[in-house]
Formats: sequence, C-alpha cells, structure tokens
Amino acid sequence: MSHNLLKGKRGIIFGALNDMSIAWKVAERAVEEGATITLSNTPVAVRMGETNELGKKLNAEILPADATNVEDLEMVFVKSMEILGGKIDFVLHSIGMSPNVRKKRTYDDLDYDMLTKTLDVSAISFHKMMQVARKLDAIETGGSLLALTYVAAQRVFYGYNDMADAKALLESITRSFGYIYGRDKGVRVNTISQSPTMTTAGSGVKGMTDLLDFSEQMAPLGNANADDAADYCIVMFSDLTRKITMQNLYNDGGFSSMGMSLSAMQQYTGRGKDRDETGNAIKE
Amino acid sequence: MSHNLLKGKRGIIFGALNDMSIAWKVAERAVEEGATITLSNTPVAVRMGETNELGKKLNAEILPADATNVEDLEMVFVKSMEILGGKIDFVLHSIGMSPNVRKKRTYDDLDYDMLTKTLDVSAISFHKMMQVARKLDAIETGGSLLALTYVAAQRVFYGYNDMADAKALLESITRSFGYIYGRDKGVRVNTISQSPTMTTAGSGVKGMTDLLDFSEQMAPLGNANADDAADYCIVMFSDLTRKITMQNLYNDGGFSSMGMSLSAMQQYTGRGKDRDETGNAIKE
Amino acid sequence: MSHNLLKGKRGIIFGALNDMSIAWKVAERAVEEGATITLSNTPVAVRMGETNELGKKLNAEILPADATNVEDLEMVFVKSMEILGGKIDFVLHSIGMSPNVRKKRTYDDLDYDMLTKTLDVSAISFHKMMQVARKLDAIETGGSLLALTYVAAQRVFYGYNDMADAKALLESITRSFGYIYGRDKGVRVNTISQSPTMTTAGSGVKGMTDLLDFSEQMAPLGNANADDAADYCIVMFSDLTRKITMQNLYNDGGFSSMGMSLSAMQQYTGRGKDRDETGNAIKE
Amino acid sequence: MSHNLLKGKRGIIFGALNDMSIAWKVAERAVEEGATITLSNTPVAVRMGETNELGKKLNAEILPADATNVEDLEMVFVKSMEILGGKIDFVLHSIGMSPNVRKKRTYDDLDYDMLTKTLDVSAISFHKMMQVARKLDAIETGGSLLALTYVAAQRVFYGYNDMADAKALLESITRSFGYIYGRDKGVRVNTISQSPTMTTAGSGVKGMTDLLDFSEQMAPLGNANADDAADYCIVMFSDLTRKITMQNLYNDGGFSSMGMSLSAMQQYTGRGKDRDETGNAIKE
Repeated sequence: MSHNLLKGKRGIIFGALNDMSIAWKVAERAVEEGATITLSNTPVAVRMGETNELGKKLNAEILPADATNVEDLEMVFVKSMEILGGKIDFVLHSIGMSPNVRKKRTYDDLDYDMLTKTLDVSAISFHKMMQVARKLDAIETGGSLLALTYVAAQRVFYGYNDMADAKALLESITRSFGYIYGRDKGVRVNTISQSPTMTTAGSGVKGMTDLLDFSEQMAPLGNANADDAADYCIVMFSDLTRKITMQNLYNDGGFSSMGMSLSAMQQYTGRGKDRDETGNAIKE
Repeated sequence: MSHNLLKGKRGIIFGALNDMSIAWKVAERAVEEGATITLSNTPVAVRMGETNELGKKLNAEILPADATNVEDLEMVFVKSMEILGGKIDFVLHSIGMSPNVRKKRTYDDLDYDMLTKTLDVSAISFHKMMQVARKLDAIETGGSLLALTYVAAQRVFYGYNDMADAKALLESITRSFGYIYGRDKGVRVNTISQSPTMTTAGSGVKGMTDLLDFSEQMAPLGNANADDAADYCIVMFSDLTRKITMQNLYNDGGFSSMGMSLSAMQQYTGRGKDRDETGNAIKE
Repeated sequence: MSHNLLKGKRGIIFGALNDMSIAWKVAERAVEEGATITLSNTPVAVRMGETNELGKKLNAEILPADATNVEDLEMVFVKSMEILGGKIDFVLHSIGMSPNVRKKRTYDDLDYDMLTKTLDVSAISFHKMMQVARKLDAIETGGSLLALTYVAAQRVFYGYNDMADAKALLESITRSFGYIYGRDKGVRVNTISQSPTMTTAGSGVKGMTDLLDFSEQMAPLGNANADDAADYCIVMFSDLTRKITMQNLYNDGGFSSMGMSLSAMQQYTGRGKDRDETGNAIKE
Repeated sequence: MSHNLLKGKRGIIFGALNDMSIAWKVAERAVEEGATITLSNTPVAVRMGETNELGKKLNAEILPADATNVEDLEMVFVKSMEILGGKIDFVLHSIGMSPNVRKKRTYDDLDYDMLTKTLDVSAISFHKMMQVARKLDAIETGGSLLALTYVAAQRVFYGYNDMADAKALLESITRSFGYIYGRDKGVRVNTISQSPTMTTAGSGVKGMTDLLDFSEQMAPLGNANADDAADYCIVMFSDLTRKITMQNLYNDGGFSSMGMSLSAMQQYTGRGKDRDETGNAIKE
C-alpha cells in the first residue's frame, strides 16, 4: 500500500540484480511511494541479471556503471538529473563483493590486491558516489543517502572474511562524509544494518543457511527480509526522518541487542525446550 | 501532511503537558495520521497543564494516572481498550523527572530516596507499563512501544545528574522487555534519543541554553526539534518498521556521531572562522 | 608471582565470600602485590562464609557492613583509613543480588520492591560508596575504583533478568561519578565486564552451565576465570593505568566482540566439525 | 620503576621515530620491564630519525622495512626471531600516514590512490604483519599484539580526514584477525585508543593545539600522554591481561565517555566560571 511518502522525489538505486535483491525491492517500493528513479549496476550485472526487466516494469532507465569508477559515477548522476528532471533526493548503495570470498581465500591467507578490490567495491564506492555528487551539486538540500551493511562490522562472524572490514570502512565513510554533507547541504547519510538476507549474493555465502537459522532463533522478531529492508529505506528517504544522519540503523528483529535467546540456547544444547524463560528446568 | 501511516491504529500517549511537549506533538501527528488515541498524565499535570485542551482538540480522552502506580496503569490500559474499541497498537512513554535536579542536589550529594524516585518515574514506569499491558494482553500483535531518552545515557553531560542514570536504566529495560515482548507477541520496543529540546521540562534545566547552542553547533543538521521527534515516532509506530526492536535510535542531527565540528571549535577557541575544514588557517 | 604493583597501597575489597569469589582472588593478589587491605561483606555473609578465614590468611581486618547503608559505608571507610594508616588507594565493588531471580520471578512478572532492592544492592551501593568516600575525602589522589559487571548490560541474555538492568545502571553510575571524581580528585572509576564465572553467586543461576559452555565456545580465548579477573583488577589498581577512567573493560576472552564462532556454530547445528573457517563443507 | 612485567619476553616495536613517539616510549619501557626487542621503521624514517640512537641505547637491532611490503615484514619477523632467540611475545603497530592530509586534500576532494595508500599504510599493514607472522608461526602462544588508534574511528573530528576511516578499518582488522589468532594460537590482538598526543606526526596536524586543549578540558583526568600510553602497552603485553582480546581500549583520561564537561563549556561560552556543577549560575 502506498502512503505517497516519496511523491515527487527523484532517486538512484545502485545494485538491483534480480527480484531477490534488496535494491530491487527498494526500487519497487520507491516507485510505489511516488518517486521516479534510475537504476544502476555493473555492465556485467545488467547483461546477466534481470535489471532491464525491472527497468521496464518501473519505467526506470538503466545506467550501467562501475561504481568504483569516478567517470562512470559522474555519468550516472548527470544523466539521472537529466532524465528525472532535477537534483536527486535519494540514493541507495547496495553494492558489495569480495574476491577473497569468491576465491575461498581464508582471512589469514588474504590476497592483498583482492582486499583492495573488496574495499573499493564495497566501501570506497560510496565515498566516490558522494564526492562525485557533491562536486556536481547533484543532491537536493535535505536529500537522503543510504548504504546497506551488516553487524559483522561490529562483531566477528566466522567466514564473513574481509567483507567485515569493508562494512566497517563503509560505516566510517558514512559518518565522515555525513558530517560534511550534512553541514554544507543538509544531506543525510546513514547505513541500514540488515539481517542476513537470502539474496543471490547472500546465497553464495557458504554456511548461509546456518547463519539465517541462528539469527532467526536469536532475534525476538526473527530476521528482517528484503521487503522489511525496503520499507525502512522508504522511511529513511522520506521527509519524516530529516534530522537522522551519520547513524547505523539495525533492521534485524532485535538480533544486534541479543546475547543469547532461550530459543537459540535450546537449539545449541540440543536438549530442546527443557528450560523456561528464567532458565529453570521445565521437565523436572 | 498526512500519509495515513497510522490509519485505524489505537494509541496511548503518556506525558503531553503543553504545546512545547514532544508528547503533545506526537499526539497531534498520530491523530493526523489516522490514529485514535487516549492521553495520560499525572493528575497534577492534568490540572495544571493544557492536556484537556489537547484532548478536546484531538477528541481524545484524558486518563489521569501516576505512571509509577501499577493500578493506575491497569486502569489506563483497560479504559483505553474500552474507549478505543480494541487492543492498543502503540504507546509513547515521555516521562522523566528528578527530584534531585529540582532540589539542586549535585551528583556527589544525592538524596537516595530522591534517586529511587527519579528511577521509578523516569525508567521503571516503562517496565510497569509493559508488565501491566502484557498481563492484560493489551497490546496488538506487531504493536510498537517507544520511550524518549537522551545521549547522556552513553556519555556524561555535566549537570544532567541522576537523569543520566535513569536514561541508562530506561534503555536497558527497553532491551530486556523488548526481547520478551518481541518473542512472545511480536511487539517492538525502542527508545528515541532526542536532541536537547526546549520543552517545559527542558527549559527548567539550568544551562539548557548553552547545551542547545553547543548541540546545534556540533550536529551537522542542527538539533532535532519536537516536530522532528513526532515524525520519527509516527514512523516507528507505523507498519513500515516492523522488524526494528530493542534499539536506541538517535534523532539528533548527527550529534551522537560527532567528536568535534569545525563550527563548535570556532566557537570554543573564540577565534571565529579562522580555519577551514582541514584545520588549515584561512586568514594566513 | 608478585611484581610489587601495589606496594604501599591501601585498599578495600567488598564482596569476598569464599575462595570461588572473584573478590577473594583479588584480595589475595592485592596483598601479594604489596597492598594492605580491609575486607567488607554483609554481616550475614561474614557469618556464613569464609571471609574470616581469608582475613586471617591475609592479615586483613573484616568490616561487616550493609553496602546499601550509608552509615555502614562511612564506618568502613573511616575504620579502613584508621587500620591501614591513611587514605584509600583502591576499592573493589563485587556486589550483586536480585531477589527477583532468587524468588524465580520472571522479567515480565517482577516484584517492584524486589527490583528496587536489586538496583540498590547491585548498583546504587557503588554510588553510595563513592559519595561517602568523597565526603570523607577518603580516596587518595590518583586512586582507582572498580566494580564488576557483565555484558548483559549491553545485550539481552535470557534469564539474567533484572540483574541486566542493575548492571546497566552500575555502568552509568561509573561514568557519571567517574567524571566528578576524576575532575576533582584525579580518581579513576571503571567497570570490568567479566566472562560468566562459576562463583557461588554464579552457580546459583540456573542455566549457568549452558551459558559457560556457549561463552567458552564463542570466545576465541575461552572464558576468563576468577584468577584472570584478579590480575586485571591489580593492573587497574596500579599506577600503570592512571589515565583510564569511565570505561567498561571486557575481560572475556573476546566474547563481546563475537557474533558467531565456528566452534559455537558447529555445536549449534549439531553436525560437528563439518565446515572449515570459511564455512566450506569439509566432509565433501 | 621496573616491575619485571616483561621479563624474558621478546618484542618488535614498529614506528619509533624520535623521543616524542609513543613507540619510542614503549620501546624504552619494554626494555626497562625486562624484554629484549627489535625496532622497525621505514628506511627513510630510519635514515632521517633518531631510531639508531634508540637502538644503541636499548641494545636493540634496527630492521628497516616498509610495513606495507609482505617480504619486508617476513624479513622483520624472521630476523627478529634469530636475533632475539625465539618466537615473538609482543608487537606494537604504531604506524599511520595519510597522503591526503599531507597534500591538504579535504575529505570531499580525496585522491583515491592516496586513500588506498592511507589505508594500506595505516591499517592493512597490521593485517599483513599478522598474516606474515602466522604463516611463519612467529608469535608465541599467549602473545600480545597491539595497534594504536584514535576515537575518530567512532566519532567525526573535523580535519582528521581519511585517517578516521583508516582507524575504523584498523579496529575491524583487529577484531577479525583477533578471532582467528586467538582461537588457533591463544594470541591477543587489541587496539589502544589514545588521547591526541603531541608526537612529530601529531604536531603536523593543523589545529592540533586546539584539539589538545579541547580534549584536555573535556577529559576529567586530562589527556593521556606518550608515557601513559607506554605504561598501558606494557600492561597489555604482560601476562596479567591474558584473556583480553579484540578490544578497543581507551587511554584518554575519560574523554570518550564525555558529552560535555563543565570546564569545556565554560571555555565554549566564553563566560568563564559562571556556573557550578549542576549548571546553576554562581555569579548571581
């Protein structure tokens, strides 16, 4: 259901690959809420994925671009302003990739060129977007920029590898640039730290099923899915959150505030529901 | 402008004293967004303040109650369900008071009965609300409960006194009960950590003007005001944030993520605008 | 082995019950490092426990006192200065108790008088110690005060109940008073957030064995025990940490920075060691 | 005064430039506490600085190396083991440099090759040290690795520029590798987050004097200096802190837990000491 939260707003969504993508859902919801948008993804992803299909459905132009390439990003912002007829109100950065993970290099055997690539694609690209946008004066006063992140930036999840470091860097860039963009143009910059989500990217992670289950059992509300993430993005793009900036916002069913849930402990001990909420044996 | 974000929802707003109150603004916005509500405040505040006027304006019944009194709270929830015609979807806790601050006891000369009162009024009352509501099964599945807090729960602000400890306790209660209420009923429980706000309560704080100015200079977007807080509350009460729980959400223009801004430093040094963003002298 | 880290220093240790107590180990290590100390505990604990035995062993006088009673605390500080021959250099607060936990009241069915008692015993007692000490000018310039806490102050552990709120309050008091005591007398105030520890208090917690096991599997260095805690306390009482204040210091083998370890996940899934560090199946 | 805290231990200190360097003080204190060490710095720094003088004084061999170069780091660890006669017990990483800061590029006009250099020198070098050391099995079981960082990793300080992002990355690497090194070899990995310190590096920062003053006024114990940092490093290298890992440890006189001090506010308002601790006017 639409609330017209983004009526008249113009946005750019980076990273919509297919209908499992969070960015895909955000694009759909943004249009539903009254926005006009452009879509950007890597040329390869545009060719391989279903981005064109989404573009048709949403009447949104596709702008293939390498988000680590400053010229490509300039093109995306310039063309988006042309196409949409004015400055941009919101941007979603949903981009992340680790060659070390892909090549199954463990964290104590990283290839450093690959690490540089991980950081460039997954974190520095957000800085590049903002620096480019700012030089072009492409963002409307009071605009809202978002990137997606994960709690591995704060706590170690085995196997998440150098993506954890990339997310920590991404969140720092969010704060650092958020100060400047806020001070000078009233632009908000935040990250949404999402539950593990079974996207195409996510499903490539080995052990993802286990992690999804553990998170689901730990989080009192269960995992947030891509639809939940899209709703949160809409809220953050809207005018209802104009003073929120430089924040890392958890959309995770409460996972980030949990140390141990009854449900997860019952699974952990393998004894099933043998204790009540106070930890007393209930089979005595 | 209404987005019908709370259409058909029922809410209780605790703590609307007058039109400077955040709770007052939240009440107005909630009704504007389609909710029906009841209002509650202490009997003294109801007599002394303008709550009745707000009640008339919003067609909302006033339920005077001492929020530290379990029986009073039971009455508020029972009557609210009767009046509004069903279970409650959202609650705002905007309650705080320190007798030590009022009596100008410094933090190293606290009266301990007063400290107990500070904690009971400003923090434990939120637990009492939730325990009462849960026993009455008064909150709708997927409901949303909010309390207002301040960054003094994390960092020391001189003169904020035992209210800092009360806010830390409030935020812990939010997490602790949030786990249980989420797990068992899908109810969200969060705090919004607001910029210092010139409410009647706020204006009673000595040094408030200085604090407002410092926060305004530090925060890249400036201080969030009561209207901004109301918008954020609406968002958190709506169905667009259904997986967010046990969080402390800063609505502060970025203050909480700042260490030192150029603007605040210029004021601090008393030299005015003599340095640029990198700290280089600009008057050389 | 002694390093003479506390040579010539005078201290008060609150909460040594028996040789499983962290406070007991701290007392032993403090004397070993050259300090002279007094011991304090509740009159009941002194009668029931083995505190007298420790006192004899360490040549330390026992001062029975209710740590929630201001007059008792005054007595402890006055007598300790007399006995030890000067102002106090360090204090350990190792005190915590929840009647709600003892009476098996769950967190959504708290008795509020008991909650007040939990907070008074486990958190406000630390404020009372500091306020009393400061009024008596009982702490040496550069002195060091410590309280023991647990990560449940930050994240919810089912069954930890209102002790979580007490610990959050304790940590806030540490910051709030730490500012004043630091500014005015150069006194440090910190908390050490310890792994779950199988003390007499700890062993009373139902589900403690499970929690110990989970923490042990999550923490890369395993749980810190009472001896480890004692060493950390010695370090924090020494002159080698003179600028550290208002901090919550984790002594937990890394638990607090973990989201999920390989070892805990293997136990959680019940499949044993079927995946390597990157999450790849190793039995394929 | 020595406490023999590092008796028989072997260490490597990276980054001692001159007697203002924190690393220099750590080297001196480590030897004083009974350790034998080697020193490493860039070839240029070794030629330009006074590292050789320190080497003579401490009877420590100098191993010039580029800390971003894996082969150089291998040489440092291999030679250090030869020279010191066994595996390494502790390592200090005190390395940081931003070409963007040097070239006065503001944060919204970064050169991206320079940013890559900033991250490589200031953060990734720590990963390289650990990966190299682990492959060589160069660290003794229970060893302790430290890197120096700054609170700008958590909050924005204008003008700190891309060094803030580098420090955030450094702290993430500390956690990520800390998990692996702890789990597999019992090795601790932590960061110490130090007050701004007037080292040669620090003194190059424009606005450093103002920042030092602000920090001094905010921190109840005042700024920690290089000697204080050295003491903390000794403690963290010693056997007294064996279960502390993956932590960011503030050595800052309490700055990180402050929101606003009376002293800083008095300077900020320019009115001098006109209010007492509760914020009441004292000149009325």
